[in-house]
Amino acid sequence: MVIPDALFHPKSLAVIGASRKPEKVGYGVFANLIHAGFPGDIYGVNPGGGEVLGRAVYSSIEEIPGAVELGVFVVPPAAILDGMPRLAEKGMRAAIVISAGFKETGGDGAGLERALCETARRVKVRVLGPNCLGLINTHARLNASFAAGTPPSGAISFFSQSGALCTAILDWAIGENVGFSKFISLGNKADISESDVMEYLSNDPETRVLLGYVESIDDGIRFLKVSREVTAKKPVILVKAGATAAGARAASSHTGSLAGSDRAYAAAFRQGGILRAETVEDLFDLALGFAMQPMPGGDRLLILTNAGGPGILAADTAERLGIPLAEVSQGLRARISGKVPPTASLGNPVDIIGDAQAGRYRDVLSVLRDDPAIDAVLVLLTPQAMTEPEGTARAVVQALSGSGKSAFASFLGEASVREARKVLSAGGIPSYPVPERAVRSLHAMLRYRRIRAVTPAESTDPAGIRKADARKAIDRALAAGKKNLGEEESRSVLEAYGFRFPRHALAQTSQEAVEAFTEMRRPVAMKIVSPDILHKTDVGGVRLNLSDPDSVAQAFVEITSAARRMVPSAWVAGVSVQEMVSGGRELILGMSRDPQFGPLLMFGLGGIYVEVLKDVSFRVAPVSRREAVEMIREIRAYPLLSSFRGSTPSDEGGIVDSLLRISRLSLDFPEIQELDLNPVMVMPKGRGVRAIDCRMTIAEAKR
Amino acid sequence: MVIPDALFHPKSLAVIGASRKPEKVGYGVFANLIHAGFPGDIYGVNPGGGEVLGRAVYSSIEEIPGAVELGVFVVPPAAILDGMPRLAEKGMRAAIVISAGFKETGGDGAGLERALCETARRVKVRVLGPNCLGLINTHARLNASFAAGTPPSGAISFFSQSGALCTAILDWAIGENVGFSKFISLGNKADISESDVMEYLSNDPETRVLLGYVESIDDGIRFLKVSREVTAKKPVILVKAGATAAGARAASSHTGSLAGSDRAYAAAFRQGGILRAETVEDLFDLALGFAMQPMPGGDRLLILTNAGGPGILAADTAERLGIPLAEVSQGLRARISGKVPPTASLGNPVDIIGDAQAGRYRDVLSVLRDDPAIDAVLVLLTPQAMTEPEGTARAVVQALSGSGKSAFASFLGEASVREARKVLSAGGIPSYPVPERAVRSLHAMLRYRRIRAVTPAESTDPAGIRKADARKAIDRALAAGKKNLGEEESRSVLEAYGFRFPRHALAQTSQEAVEAFTEMRRPVAMKIVSPDILHKTDVGGVRLNLSDPDSVAQAFVEITSAARRMVPSAWVAGVSVQEMVSGGRELILGMSRDPQFGPLLMFGLGGIYVEVLKDVSFRVAPVSRREAVEMIREIRAYPLLSSFRGSTPSDEGGIVDSLLRISRLSLDFPEIQELDLNPVMVMPKGRGVRAIDCRMTIAEAKR
Repeated sequence: MVIPDALFHPKSLAVIGASRKPEKVGYGVFANLIHAGFPGDIYGVNPGGGEVLGRAVYSSIEEIPGAVELGVFVVPPAAILDGMPRLAEKGMRAAIVISAGFKETGGDGAGLERALCETARRVKVRVLGPNCLGLINTHARLNASFAAGTPPSGAISFFSQSGALCTAILDWAIGENVGFSKFISLGNKADISESDVMEYLSNDPETRVLLGYVESIDDGIRFLKVSREVTAKKPVILVKAGATAAGARAASSHTGSLAGSDRAYAAAFRQGGILRAETVEDLFDLALGFAMQPMPGGDRLLILTNAGGPGILAADTAERLGIPLAEVSQGLRARISGKVPPTASLGNPVDIIGDAQAGRYRDVLSVLRDDPAIDAVLVLLTPQAMTEPEGTARAVVQALSGSGKSAFASFLGEASVREARKVLSAGGIPSYPVPERAVRSLHAMLRYRRIRAVTPAESTDPAGIRKADARKAIDRALAAGKKNLGEEESRSVLEAYGFRFPRHALAQTSQEAVEAFTEMRRPVAMKIVSPDILHKTDVGGVRLNLSDPDSVAQAFVEITSAARRMVPSAWVAGVSVQEMVSGGRELILGMSRDPQFGPLLMFGLGGIYVEVLKDVSFRVAPVSRREAVEMIREIRAYPLLSSFRGSTPSDEGGIVDSLLRISRLSLDFPEIQELDLNPVMVMPKGRGVRAIDCRMTIAEAKR
Repeated sequence: MVIPDALFHPKSLAVIGASRKPEKVGYGVFANLIHAGFPGDIYGVNPGGGEVLGRAVYSSIEEIPGAVELGVFVVPPAAILDGMPRLAEKGMRAAIVISAGFKETGGDGAGLERALCETARRVKVRVLGPNCLGLINTHARLNASFAAGTPPSGAISFFSQSGALCTAILDWAIGENVGFSKFISLGNKADISESDVMEYLSNDPETRVLLGYVESIDDGIRFLKVSREVTAKKPVILVKAGATAAGARAASSHTGSLAGSDRAYAAAFRQGGILRAETVEDLFDLALGFAMQPMPGGDRLLILTNAGGPGILAADTAERLGIPLAEVSQGLRARISGKVPPTASLGNPVDIIGDAQAGRYRDVLSVLRDDPAIDAVLVLLTPQAMTEPEGTARAVVQALSGSGKSAFASFLGEASVREARKVLSAGGIPSYPVPERAVRSLHAMLRYRRIRAVTPAESTDPAGIRKADARKAIDRALAAGKKNLGEEESRSVLEAYGFRFPRHALAQTSQEAVEAFTEMRRPVAMKIVSPDILHKTDVGGVRLNLSDPDSVAQAFVEITSAARRMVPSAWVAGVSVQEMVSGGRELILGMSRDPQFGPLLMFGLGGIYVEVLKDVSFRVAPVSRREAVEMIREIRAYPLLSSFRGSTPSDEGGIVDSLLRISRLSLDFPEIQELDLNPVMVMPKGRGVRAIDCRMTIAEAKR
């Protein structure tokens, strides 16, 4: 259900709990609404009646003389539950519940919050909060919050799960004169979530860039879907707090132990096209470019400076982030050289040296702005004896506004450049205290450019899936009360989903093992089969490359006796005799289920690449073909799969197909909690993949 | 030669080129000296004589009535060369040459700069510059620069190769009221280098922390030596610009192609105990802790906050950087709980919630300051309705100054906390706009604590080195005009330095190859031997694991005919038959010569670990035993060498010994330009290492 316009653009509103005592939140909200100049009707309600700030206050909701589209509640929970239906009668479509005393208190509060949601749903009102700072829409002159002031108007919209962070950022925005469009404190997110807000803002013509501070996401699957839609239209930059705190969960699979909550967020953000900021400072650094500048038409940066050092620092950052410096052509060089002293340096950075005054900056910028080989310009200034910071700032604004190029500035220093920075901001040029931060902002725009250039993920369903067979195998295992499925049981599920295994047979005597080997006429691997033994290698339960009957017979005895010795309690079904697969490269493919995002797929090269180097990639299912390819190419060891040292490349298409199958399987069967295909052998190009070993854990599905 | 005290603490000084025209640098310098209140004698010299700023100016050096310890030159090069000996007659020990027109202009300027150095040396004067902004020593009230103003006094000393960056940082320091001790613009570094300055500052009682901006270092070996000495006493934090620009050099060895200039700087900084800052902002962020706070006695951090979000962000950063959060003991919890409302959260972060006023902060801090399980405290504040930023700042200063704990603050926002930040700074509490930057500052102090805790690197010379034999082999190769030495020739050098190779023989016929194999009675490897073939594998010149006479004979024919086919011009000495080494793990050890730092040693696991994953470590020779161990343990794949999955650990001691031998060899023979030992097999613990293949490039040594 979409957020009604009444939340951000109400024609009329009521503050339930408007107070005349300045220390009360109910006063702060009322005062903010009036001082921000909200043009619609504002009705204060308070049992005491009277006046607040010269406005009449009504002693009950029923006394309000007109219709009310938005209700702002600053009264205790019980009064909210009572008032909401009554205000809905007056036409309320949306409510902001600022009051605390709900889920965050533990105990009874959770019940009150549930009751709040039920009431709201019944009377068809969407609720922001509870336990929040409120909401600001500068373009509607609506400040329905108890924040200390209203920020200037602008193109950035910000939402936050932390109210205190809202106050800090508002304070900063007012102090630094940074413009905002919407400012939304999400509070407990009882009803309206970050996904709802993102959806609304993506269609808001007053918002160019969405920023958010996120601690947790409740409905990860919807969040991912919404993110994909929103980022196709507008950039979204988020800080995720609590990134490392979750740590690795206790898990029995390789995939599970490597997954962890932050891996899931990182994968979902990436798949959703969201730019992730490291810090709150970073969040706003990155936002300024989007808010103030046109998207760059390409990625070639020109750096203009009056000093070598800062130019080098900017160029270093560009190189580190993979941003190419624009080439200064012969023609451009000739056009600049007439405007600068002979000691100027006309590479990139263009260094117009320490005595450059505003005029020289202006002259050079007037040439640069028309050069088609430049997509973005970064203007640096250090305050030296002859420097004219303010004049230069004006020259930058004049030359680069409307030039079609993305422009950035970094005027170093403080006392001498303070006014110049204000000129830049007012003129729509994002300005940073050090060059590195300006370059990072451009980098975010370039990343977003690539994100938007990608065609929407096509959904691809692999062929030849026998879902009913897998259903049977899983139901059988569940009926038998099994949780951990070993190779034999997992294999039937995976075979139903199109995975190919080498020929294999279960031997219960060494005689049977030799017979199986003889029939295969190939070297074999032998592995213990027991539901009680998950880590077969650790108990001496695996032998590889056996190529004569004697070795096979002996291996059978050794494997079974080792298992008996090391896990005396284990029930042993026998020993699996499996044809050896040679000429391939070892992979691990896996899935673990994240509490927020659901199935999280993992890919890596097998053995030490996973266990020592942790060189793995993650994506949330469903993955598209393109995302599966990204997963494969993102690991550091990827060159080993292409054509490293002239070897035949591995069958990347086969890996992609396998990932799509695991993606499908994990969506079809929520019963599967964790899945390891380890190892999988990827064969040379055109020859597919072979699953060698596998296991999974299952549980009754919750839904 | 040590910098004389006269540079920073002169009793008297002369400005050669003092001008009465305010737009002239010679006026700016004179004015700064007077306005900063320099207490000693200031003599202005100018052919025109007269008065500047009410002070008599002398028309020639000879007219100066008293002694002069420091000369400040703001006249053209010729006048400096002429004036320096004359001022030296007056007792000058040090000179600051602000004037440009030397090496930086190219052409004649380089000659002038050489003449300047010669003159200075002759008259025993140390020179700062030329082409610099000058120097400031706030503690001596000495501002011998043309900077726009003098920063407040403090404990930070800063030196910079970029004069413009000096002006920017001064401007920032004056604007933000950050205190400095010495401020040094190095200019062209004709005489006084960063190493000289670091040496001086390490003994300067007015300097607690050294900061620097470095573009290039000329004498890397001295720099490394000085760094080690200085960082044993005081922290040094540097920004290295031009970090990535150098890129990988064209090189024929693996080591050379992976080395690059930034790898050398990174290794030298690390070995020298220098903390590297990423940006200029970072440089000062990290400095504040050292400048204002005592070193932490341990690494346990407590975070105190009035809001959840910022607390989580701080805790995230601490976890990411490996800083443990202090445990809040039962006792501490009890002591705090009486001072805060029941909804406060008494974990770590300690969240004393949104309505905390200054008194609550003070009460809790008074308890925390005495808790022995806390080494560092970070106080966070977000400006909410009830918050008292200034009062809280005063409470922080009072509670934590002199507490023995390292204290940091981050008061978020801007308008409401501006004054509070000033209170914090004035009270000696480093303060940051966002929590993450505060935590990074603490992290730098903890890193430095570990650096200083390490005992000085002991020098270790490996035993059994026959230098004369290596000398002979190298001289012979040089005499023969050789540049690239293949396996056969390199081996004799390496054997003389104690490397062990497997048994081997050179076969010139397939008959000889079979004889060699028969004598070895082991599987063998066979490799083409030709000075014209460096990459043997690429021409089919290597065969491994040959275990019968027929295979050996056939391999001989195949190797030689492949070589003839693929490199028809190559002169082939024969085929090396080498005993196979089994049971070891492949390594690569190498050396390439860096233009600044000399021999740069490389270590990595062989094959894909080097070629695909680039998982290698570098150190500048000479390396100590401890540094060699660090090299080995720093690679990501290190677990493979310890006891991964219960396998026998590799002989780490043997690798350390090998690195020490390469270190010695590369210092003894500057003729060796590049060296690859690839592969080296490290055997299980106690069984040493075997070099399998090797090559080097040599050239006549320059010295």
